[in-house]
Amino acid sequence: MIALTPSPPYYAVIFTSIRIITEDGYDLMANHMVELAQQQPGYLGYESAREDVGITVSYWESLDAIRNWKQETEHLIAQKYGREKWYKAYTTRICIVERDYSFEL
Amino acid sequence: MIALTPSPPYYAVIFTSIRIITEDGYDLMANHMVELAQQQPGYLGYESAREDVGITVSYWESLDAIRNWKQETEHLIAQKYGREKWYKAYTTRICIVERDYSFEL
Repeated sequence: MIALTPSPPYYAVIFTSIRIITEDGYDLMANHMVELAQQQPGYLGYESAREDVGITVSYWESLDAIRNWKQETEHLIAQKYGREKWYKAYTTRICIVERDYSFEL
Repeated sequence: MIALTPSPPYYAVIFTSIRIITEDGYDLMANHMVELAQQQPGYLGYESAREDVGITVSYWESLDAIRNWKQETEHLIAQKYGREKWYKAYTTRICIVERDYSFEL
């Protein structure tokens, strides 16, 4: 689904990753992280797709909301496992969304 | 590939889309647009993946570079075909990347 976000400005975290070819609990953790993110204060929405790279974009009301989510206890554990078991490489980008526009048939 | 971008600030265009199930020249045009974007002044990089949604993020030096690319003649034709033939829905978000960090094994 395309995230339904409010009028800008709001914030985006673009997480681009390359996976190691292993399962080892990844899907379970990834699903749990989506559920947990949705419960965070200031969470606005989420989009994700994976082919050669995975791109997950989460949307947030404020930089504080992003900071709090980054420090959330279970999320910290997921990040640690990510570096130890699941990811070959990733880049995280913190952005201000300044403008957006949509098309729908 | 994860785009190799310079130190922030730089700009990102997040293009999230839902395709209509048809080929009709889409892949050819999509590949051509990637090649053309790479030749634009101010182009920094590109990441893309599609599952239920497609997410394409392109990175740029400036808002001017994004504006020029949006108005590029062949790109305008691609956008028109996109609305007429290929996309059920899309959202484009123009962002300033304020901070980034990377991990690599």
